[in-house]
Amino acid sequence: MKEHIDALYENRKLSELKDYLNDINFADMALLLETVTDERKRIFLFRLLTKENAADTFVEFDGDTQENLIKAFSDNELREVLDEIYIDDAADIIEEMPASIVKRILKNTDSETREAINAILKYPEDSAGSIMTPEFVDLKKDMTVEDAFKRIRRTGLDKETIYTCYVTDASRHLIGVTTVKELLLSDYEDIIEDLMETNVISINTLDDRETASSALSKYDFLAMPVVDMENRLVGIITVDDAIDVIQEENTEDIQKMAAIVPTDTPYLKTSVFETWKKRIPWLLLLMISATITSQILTTFENKLASLSVLIAFIPMLMDTGGNSGGQSSVTIIRSLSLGEIDLKDILKVIWKEVRVGFICGLSLGIVCFAKLMLFDRIVLGNSEITFAVALAVSLTILLEIMAAKIIGCTLPIFAKKIGFDPAVMASPFITTIVDAISLLVYIGLASLILGI
Amino acid sequence: MKEHIDALYENRKLSELKDYLNDINFADMALLLETVTDERKRIFLFRLLTKENAADTFVEFDGDTQENLIKAFSDNELREVLDEIYIDDAADIIEEMPASIVKRILKNTDSETREAINAILKYPEDSAGSIMTPEFVDLKKDMTVEDAFKRIRRTGLDKETIYTCYVTDASRHLIGVTTVKELLLSDYEDIIEDLMETNVISINTLDDRETASSALSKYDFLAMPVVDMENRLVGIITVDDAIDVIQEENTEDIQKMAAIVPTDTPYLKTSVFETWKKRIPWLLLLMISATITSQILTTFENKLASLSVLIAFIPMLMDTGGNSGGQSSVTIIRSLSLGEIDLKDILKVIWKEVRVGFICGLSLGIVCFAKLMLFDRIVLGNSEITFAVALAVSLTILLEIMAAKIIGCTLPIFAKKIGFDPAVMASPFITTIVDAISLLVYIGLASLILGI
Repeated sequence: MKEHIDALYENRKLSELKDYLNDINFADMALLLETVTDERKRIFLFRLLTKENAADTFVEFDGDTQENLIKAFSDNELREVLDEIYIDDAADIIEEMPASIVKRILKNTDSETREAINAILKYPEDSAGSIMTPEFVDLKKDMTVEDAFKRIRRTGLDKETIYTCYVTDASRHLIGVTTVKELLLSDYEDIIEDLMETNVISINTLDDRETASSALSKYDFLAMPVVDMENRLVGIITVDDAIDVIQEENTEDIQKMAAIVPTDTPYLKTSVFETWKKRIPWLLLLMISATITSQILTTFENKLASLSVLIAFIPMLMDTGGNSGGQSSVTIIRSLSLGEIDLKDILKVIWKEVRVGFICGLSLGIVCFAKLMLFDRIVLGNSEITFAVALAVSLTILLEIMAAKIIGCTLPIFAKKIGFDPAVMASPFITTIVDAISLLVYIGLASLILGI
Repeated sequence: MKEHIDALYENRKLSELKDYLNDINFADMALLLETVTDERKRIFLFRLLTKENAADTFVEFDGDTQENLIKAFSDNELREVLDEIYIDDAADIIEEMPASIVKRILKNTDSETREAINAILKYPEDSAGSIMTPEFVDLKKDMTVEDAFKRIRRTGLDKETIYTCYVTDASRHLIGVTTVKELLLSDYEDIIEDLMETNVISINTLDDRETASSALSKYDFLAMPVVDMENRLVGIITVDDAIDVIQEENTEDIQKMAAIVPTDTPYLKTSVFETWKKRIPWLLLLMISATITSQILTTFENKLASLSVLIAFIPMLMDTGGNSGGQSSVTIIRSLSLGEIDLKDILKVIWKEVRVGFICGLSLGIVCFAKLMLFDRIVLGNSEITFAVALAVSLTILLEIMAAKIIGCTLPIFAKKIGFDPAVMASPFITTIVDAISLLVYIGLASLILGI
C-alpha cells in the first residue's frame, strides 16, 4: 500500500493518487500517514482526501500528528475539518492540545458548537458526561413514523448514530426510545407514542464512564442515553466509544495489578522519564514495605544460621506464597470489576478460598515433601535435608498458601468497601504481606519441629 | 422490584404482574429470574413473558437455568423460544447443553435453522466462524434504494442487525457494503451500486475471534462481515458479541498473567475442585522451577552463613526484582495484545527498558543505601550493616532491576515469536527467573565487596 502511494506521489499522478487514497479506510489511513515522516508530504497527501475522509482520518491521529497538522492548516482548512467531526471527538482533541491551538480551534467553530464543546469539557474526567456527544436524533411522541423519517433524513447527516431515536417532551425530558429498525417495520401512519419503549434505561452525566460502558454492553445497546439531574436528555454515548472505554479501563486495571501508575499513552510514545515516573512509586513503596521481612530475618538470623539448610528454601517459599495470593487477588479483582461478585459475597468468597487454599496447599506440600525426600536427599545426596526439615518446609507451604488465599481474596473486597480501587491489591502488594507471614510461619515451624 | 413481583404473585394479580414483568429489560429480567429459587414459580413467571421477551431473556440466562427451563418446557414452548432467538445464540446454548437436551433442541427447530446451527458448531472454538450469525441483510447491486427498503422491511424482523447491509453477487461473493443511514439519506431511485462502499473490510471464518473483534473496534463497525476462503459472505459478527469477546479475552489474559489456567465460568459458579484444577498446574510448575534458587543457596550456604546479615535482605531483593520484571512484562504483554507494539519493535523496546531499568535501579539503589546507612545502622543501631554490606545490597538492586526489565520485556515478545501466548510470560514466571539471577548477582557482589 505504502509503496504504491510513494510511486504515485513521486510520479505526480495526482488524480490516481487521490482516488487510491480515498478508497482506504480512515483507520488504516491514519496509521499510514503517521508513518510518513516528511511533514510536507504528509500534509500534501492529507489534502487529497475528501472533506469527510479527511475529518474521519484526522480524528484517528495521535495528539502529536493532530497538533502538527493544525499548525499547517489554514483557518479555512481547520474550519472544514472541524465542521465535519463530531462534537465528542472535538472535545477529546481539545483536551490534548496546548492553549494556543485550543484558542485557534474555538475561534474556527461556530458559537453553537463552541458551546457544546465547552459543556462536555466541563464534566469531570472519567464521567459519562465527558465522553458523550450531544448529537442524537430526538423525536416527539405525537410524530408519525413518516414525520420521524423526515426528521432523520433532514438532520441525520450530522448525527453520530441515527439508529436509536430518543423521544423527549417539551422540556427535553427523556420519555421514550425507539429504533430505526422498529420504524422501518412499522406503517408510515403509526404514532411514535405507540411504538416507543417507555421503560427507558439511561445513566447520569456524573456517573462513571465505566458504569455507562458496562451498562451499554449489558443491555446490548448501540448508544446509551445520558441525562442530567432533572432527567433531561443531554447526550448519548455510542457503542464505539464504549468499547474504547472498556479497553482503556482494562488496561488501567492491568497496570494497577502490575504495580504501575496507570497511563493511557501507548508504550512506544511514552518517554523513558515518563515510564520511570509511572513505575517508581510502587517499586519504592513495595521495597520499603519489604523492610519488614528484613526485620524478621534479622531477629531470627542466628536461629537460621545455626541450621543453614533452611535458608535455601526461603526464595521458593516466598514465590509460592506470592503466586498463590496473586491468583486469588487477581481472580477477585476481575470478578468485582465484571460485577460477578459483590461486597455482600465476602463470606462465600472466603469460605471458598479456604477450601481451595487447603487443597492447593496440601497438593503442593505433598509434592514438595516427596521431592525433598526422594530427589534432593536420595538422588542428589543432600544429607542436610532430613525428614524434619522436609516436614517444616512442606507444612509451611500448606499454611502459607491458606493464608495467602485468604489475604488475597479479602484485601480487594476490603479495598472496594472503603472506596479504593481493588486493582491495587494485586500480586505485588499481596506478596509483600504474604512474605512476612510465610517467614514467621516458617521460622515458627522450624523452631517447633527442629528445636532450633 | 423483586418485592413488588412477589406481592403481585402471592395475590395472583396476573394481568398486572404480566404487564409489570414485560416492562422490565430482558437483561435485568434474566438476573431477577435466576434469583428465584422456587423452580415452579420461575417457570410460571417466565411463561407470563411475551414471546419476544421470553426469548431475549432466555438467551441471557446462565447454562444451568437454561437447562432447567428446557426440561420444564413443552415441545411447543421450546419451539416458540427457539423460533425467536438468533442462530448464533442458539449455537452458544447448544454448546453448553448435555446431549439429550441438544437432541431435543435440534428436533424442535426447522431443517434450515438446524443446518445453520450445525454449520456454526463446526467451526473451531475461538474462531470468527464460531461466533458469527448467518442472519444478515444482503442486497444486490442493481437494486434501487426503494427495493432495498422493501427487502429490509420484508426480512428485517429476523435479522440481528439491519443497519449494515451487504451487497453480494450471484455466487454470494461480498462485493460491497452500505448502511441504512446511507440509504435513508439517499433518493428512492438511487442504485445500490452507486452508493455502496466497494473497499470492503472483512475477515475469514477461521480467523481468531479476537482478531475479528479488535478489527470491528478499530474500524468502528456495528457488524464485521465474515467470509469463507472463496470470499463468499457466510455471516456477520455483531458489535454486542464483539464486546463480549473483548471482555472474555481480557479476563483470559488477566488470568494467564496471574498464573491461572483460563476459564470463562464466573467465580461463584466454579466449584472448589474446578478452581483448584485451574490454579494448581502453574503453582506446581513455578514451585518446581524455584528449585533452582534452592540449589544456588545450597551451593553458597556456607558463604552466607558466615555473614548472616546478608540473609535478611534476600526476600526484599527477590520481591523488588520480581516487581520490576512484572511491570515490564505486563506492560509489553498488554501493548502486544492492543497491537501497540509488534515483533519488529523488539530492539526499540529493549533499549527503552535498559534506560528505564537503569534509572529505576539507580533511584531504588540510592534510597535503599540511604535507608540502610541512616535508618537501620544509625537509628536502629544495627552495627552489622556496614558500608560494604549496604553497598552490596544497593548494587544488587541496580543490577537486578536492569536484568529484570530486560528479561521482562524480552520473554513476552519471544513467546509471541514462537507462537505462544505472551500472557503466560507475566510476573510469576519472570519472578522465578529473576530470583535466580538476583541471587547470583547478590552472592557475586557480596564475595567481591565483602570478601566472603
